[in-house]
This record gives sequence, C-alpha cells and structure tokens, in this order.
Amino acid sequence: MTPTLIYFDFLCPYAWRGVELADLLRREHGLMFELRHFSLVQGNHNDNAQSRHQPTWWLTDQAAGSGSAAQIGSLEAFLADQAAARQSEEKRWAFALALFRAVHRDKAELSAQTIQAAAQTARLDMAQFQTDLAEDGARRAELRTDLAAAAEQGVFGTPTFVLPEGHAAYFRFANLVSPEKALETWQLYVSVLESDARIETIKRAKRA
Amino acid sequence: MTPTLIYFDFLCPYAWRGVELADLLRREHGLMFELRHFSLVQGNHNDNAQSRHQPTWWLTDQAAGSGSAAQIGSLEAFLADQAAARQSEEKRWAFALALFRAVHRDKAELSAQTIQAAAQTARLDMAQFQTDLAEDGARRAELRTDLAAAAEQGVFGTPTFVLPEGHAAYFRFANLVSPEKALETWQLYVSVLESDARIETIKRAKRA
Repeated sequence: MTPTLIYFDFLCPYAWRGVELADLLRREHGLMFELRHFSLVQGNHNDNAQSRHQPTWWLTDQAAGSGSAAQIGSLEAFLADQAAARQSEEKRWAFALALFRAVHRDKAELSAQTIQAAAQTARLDMAQFQTDLAEDGARRAELRTDLAAAAEQGVFGTPTFVLPEGHAAYFRFANLVSPEKALETWQLYVSVLESDARIETIKRAKRA
Repeated sequence: MTPTLIYFDFLCPYAWRGVELADLLRREHGLMFELRHFSLVQGNHNDNAQSRHQPTWWLTDQAAGSGSAAQIGSLEAFLADQAAARQSEEKRWAFALALFRAVHRDKAELSAQTIQAAAQTARLDMAQFQTDLAEDGARRAELRTDLAAAAEQGVFGTPTFVLPEGHAAYFRFANLVSPEKALETWQLYVSVLESDARIETIKRAKRA
C-alpha cells in the first residue's frame, strides 16, 4: 500500500490538526500516512516569490540561531523531528504529536526547551536523540530532501496531503476532528479531489 | 425559500461552469439561485490591494470604453445583464448563459457585438433591451449594489456561492458538470462548508 504523504510545519495550527487527523486515521482505520516537512518561512520568503517550484533561499542553508524566532524555531523543530525519525516510525509520530500539542494546544513557545520536553513526552531514547541531533549535516540533508520534494510538488501551505493516486491539496480546517468524525471528514476531502468536476479550489470568503 | 447567491464575472471560465451548474440545479432539482455581479478587474485592481472589503477603485466609476479590454468588456457585459434582468428572471438567466457560452465555449470576444448576439439568442425584447441599456445611470446603480455587497461579503473570485445559512465560498472546478452529476457535485460542496471541521480551504498544489 502506498502511503499518503502529509506535509507539515510545526509553526502551523492547521498542520497540527491535519497531523492529528492523519494519526486517528492510521491508528483506527488502517490508512497509511508518512510525515514530510514543508517550511512556511522558506515558502513565504521574499527571495522565493518568483517560483514556489525553484526556491533560491533554503531553510537548510541557514545557520542555527539566525533569523526570526519562527525561522529559528521551525528549523530546530524540523531537525529534531528528523532525529526522532531515526528511532522508529512510531517514535517519530509520538514526537511530532507531542511537539504540536505543546505549541498549539498548550501554547508553549517553539523553542529548544519545548523540543526537549516533547522528546521526553514521546519517550525517545534521549541519549540517542542527542547523538542523532549532533549529526547536523545528515539531519539537514534529510530535511532538504523533504523541502525539495515539497517544492517539486508545488506545496504552498500546511497541511498538504499527497494521495497515492497523485492528487495533492492544501486542506485547512479550523476545528480538531473527533475520532467519530475522522473517517467521514477524510472521505469528504478525498471525494472533493476525486470528483469528475476536477475541483481545484474551495475557499471561504470572509465577511468585512 | 431563501435563494443561494452566485457571484460571477463574464470574464471567468470558472464562473461560466458555476452558472451552468446553478442553472441545472434550479431547473432540474428545484433549488433557488440568484445571479450577482463581482468584478475581477475591480477585485484585482492595485488601488484595492489594501482591503477587499473597502474598494477605492470601482468599475462603476469608469467611463464606458476606458481601460483594458477586460475592463471595457466586463463593464459592458454587466450593464447588459442588468438590462436583461429588467425583462424577467428567466430572460436574465437565458442572457447570462448565452453570453457565457459565446465567450467561454465558443471563444468569442467579450465585445458589444457578442453581447448583442447573446441578447438575440436569449430572445430578449431587443427594443426594450436598448431602452434599458440607455438608462446607464440606473444600470450602474444596480451593478454598484452587487459590487458593494460582494465587497462586504469578502468575495475574491468567481464563482462564489453564498448559501442561505451564511456559508460563502469560492468554488473553482475545471470540468463542466453533467446533468447526472449536478446534485452530487453540489452536495459535495455544501458538505464541505457544513462539516464540523469548519473547513476553510481545499486547494490543489500544482506540480512543477
């Protein structure tokens, strides 16, 4: 079975809800998802305004601790998530969910301290985690692979799901989905993408 | 029964498909729709970049025949459609569909000549049509009412549907919907807007 990819950034509350939905679907309904990184700081960077498919400014080229708080925090979080992924797929989901919940549910800053706490919540092997984090070049190379694939795919926001059949779309929703509604909500999204009408966009208008 | 509003611009092929869908739904399924104008030239105008809710540049303030071909054609088409609406609701639908098909199916220019031909295809009373068109101030006032309501609603593209319950969203699809699929396609759109997840956006990513 080919998995559905979910591109996310820890900065984004919509990505949090998307990853929670994907986690419900994989645990309770046997669907397969793979976590992938897309950087909003990179995607929205002025130097990349010409083309979302060919970035010139890459998050992976930036020194640790340089740039805005969002830039620093998201780079650190991505590298930590790549380190978590070294332990196992399950540990990686646990880490990503713990960090998302800390930041978007519990309103913690996306900082080194919050990242370490999430690693503990996820019961990572902490010694191994530090060792993997210290291999900065290897973790950045893995992150770069995700960011390059996202650019090729034309990802512009998170969460974006890429279905096995090739459909790919940003899916933004404001409410956490309950376990009872997870499958129905997902099937609605898939039905939109598979409709004969070739639906390209549904986007709410906001009143003044 | 409160009707669903459909905001459209004759310039837009997606609006054409939206109006065709609405026409199928009203004729074959008893749903109620009302045609409304939103101007893409106005919505995308640099002078209005600050706020889509408070335009400073209005299409209705522009002299006939001034500006780009899109500006000239869309203003003329809107005023003609307001004139057609004076005859009857049915005549107005017939005119709007005839003009949309001429431009987007048959690839005619959006010009005075195409507009006159559409009026004849729609079997408008041509003498009355010219008389109503000549009341330029009244037709512009009607158009202005639509454009102001669209701005208040936050419309940014066409077609945008405003449901009786208050949901409003841009609905862009690339394929004409067949009569057999009309209701299913519409219900899919409505289900997205009514979902407990409070879906705000579904938008495809385009590959490089």
